Amino acid sequence: MSLLPPRVTVREVGLRDGLQSIVTIVPTERKCEWVREAHAAGQREIEVGSFVPARLLPQLADTAAVLAYAKTLPGLFASVLVPNLKGAERALECAADLMVFPLSASHAHSLANLRKTPDEAVAELGRIRAARDAAGSKTIIEGGVGTAFGCTIQGDVDPAEVLRLMQALLDAGADRVSLADTVGYASPAQVHSLFERALRIAGDRFCCGHFHDTRGLALANVYAALELGVARFDASLAGIGGCPHAPGASGNAATEDLAFMLASMGIETGIDLPKLLALRGKVAGWLAGEQTHGALWRAGLPKTFGALRTAQVAIAAS
Amino acid sequence: MSLLPPRVTVREVGLRDGLQSIVTIVPTERKCEWVREAHAAGQREIEVGSFVPARLLPQLADTAAVLAYAKTLPGLFASVLVPNLKGAERALECAADLMVFPLSASHAHSLANLRKTPDEAVAELGRIRAARDAAGSKTIIEGGVGTAFGCTIQGDVDPAEVLRLMQALLDAGADRVSLADTVGYASPAQVHSLFERALRIAGDRFCCGHFHDTRGLALANVYAALELGVARFDASLAGIGGCPHAPGASGNAATEDLAFMLASMGIETGIDLPKLLALRGKVAGWLAGEQTHGALWRAGLPKTFGALRTAQVAIAAS
Repeated sequence: MSLLPPRVTVREVGLRDGLQSIVTIVPTERKCEWVREAHAAGQREIEVGSFVPARLLPQLADTAAVLAYAKTLPGLFASVLVPNLKGAERALECAADLMVFPLSASHAHSLANLRKTPDEAVAELGRIRAARDAAGSKTIIEGGVGTAFGCTIQGDVDPAEVLRLMQALLDAGADRVSLADTVGYASPAQVHSLFERALRIAGDRFCCGHFHDTRGLALANVYAALELGVARFDASLAGIGGCPHAPGASGNAATEDLAFMLASMGIETGIDLPKLLALRGKVAGWLAGEQTHGALWRAGLPKTFGALRTAQVAIAAS
Repeated sequence: MSLLPPRVTVREVGLRDGLQSIVTIVPTERKCEWVREAHAAGQREIEVGSFVPARLLPQLADTAAVLAYAKTLPGLFASVLVPNLKGAERALECAADLMVFPLSASHAHSLANLRKTPDEAVAELGRIRAARDAAGSKTIIEGGVGTAFGCTIQGDVDPAEVLRLMQALLDAGADRVSLADTVGYASPAQVHSLFERALRIAGDRFCCGHFHDTRGLALANVYAALELGVARFDASLAGIGGCPHAPGASGNAATEDLAFMLASMGIETGIDLPKLLALRGKVAGWLAGEQTHGALWRAGLPKTFGALRTAQVAIAAS
């Protein structure tokens, strides 16, 4: 308990991990409205899209435009996902603050999803680092190890292999690394065990946990990581995203539920929950017919929450 | 982490806390079918109903009949809720294995719900203990302190008052005590703090945590309590129950999601998850039109789960 961080960043990935998984194509103006209102609600890190071919993910074809808009908002740290060197070159051209390069620790998933073995992906990250350095760019490179707790294709993924690949990403030039439970297989005990080992390897270059709520355990998993001092988590507004292997299941931890859990524990996030809930309602309206998730929007904030919020605002202002 | 219990009891309260909160009246034969199949799926503790006047809760009017049936199943520990001495006398007549007497730590909620102050409720528990002893009965008395993390009527509830009342219940003759987040206000940090103090007071007479998933934190809260060694939790199949103050919100932790989380952590529950999921489907069918909850039933068990289950069965058999 003593390690619970006093401040945590909730990184919004709904515009990328959320929208890439659902059929509705949200127009660029609405994406920019989402980014603007998330920023107004206090969010300071947003993954705005992915530099992948538009024929593969038409939902994210306007990533460059959304990124350009995000960069106009003061203090906003805008990131993109890049699956390969070509995507990374676009991220460098567009001066993203951060690019997240995903590697799948599952050999089978890596071949199916990235058409590379995990070690070929590590080599690609080396080329991305070289391109970044050659460009004299400040874009940070995050290596994200996915399927870190198992895989819907190959089943078990050896934790030792996850950690070996995380170390390999650092060695190949990643500025920082993160772990993702891509398919919602993790339990809090597994998170505790793997994240503890990851922190021992990467220290403060370990930057983020990414949990899917496929089986309802995302927030319990976040809590297990928080206890180790992890202070950044990905989340998706309204829990959008889903899992192609589990129809109807949730995507990432719902941003609003995660922000509420953190606030309830007295952990500062900078997020104004009533504003975030209002945005959640708007975005859910844009996605009519798609499944949305989360609990807080139904229940509302507790009666005891006002005092808590006032206290936090006072702390933030002091 | 080192305190995680190797074995945990998931106490089913769907037949009481779940059914009392929804409109549909489930016929006695179906309740008995639920109890029978929950037992067949490995559940060994079930709260079958509540001894309250039928005009107040017609959904639970057949509690004596369901209890009588439950007592025919080998190894099943059948409990009932009793709001007062009169209810306790019926529990004693029917030889329930356990009666749970609820006390609300919120003065306002106590008056509204039980028409007694919390201290008057403590006195009632003293009369229940006297009646139990006079009858020479073996029925265990559990004092459950509710609204332990706040209340929808009065807002904040002082943890010191929660603990004072818990101690008072023990002093008045409760065999054991438990804590309930009746309205879904608790966060894992609050659970850690309050349960740690409760365990210091009650030791192994502290028997159970009861968490509502109103704002999506039930399983994270369970994990926080597990880390302190708490080894019994209430749960409701399909998360039924809801909250009268939060329309559409979930009730208790969903039994199937909790059982899955525990199994994923290698904690033995005795529960056969595929059987439990089949029962969940049946019960949800009986409750057509009512809101059901939970994540596992949508997503299904992970591909990695078979090996886990086999290992657990081997441990259980060894």
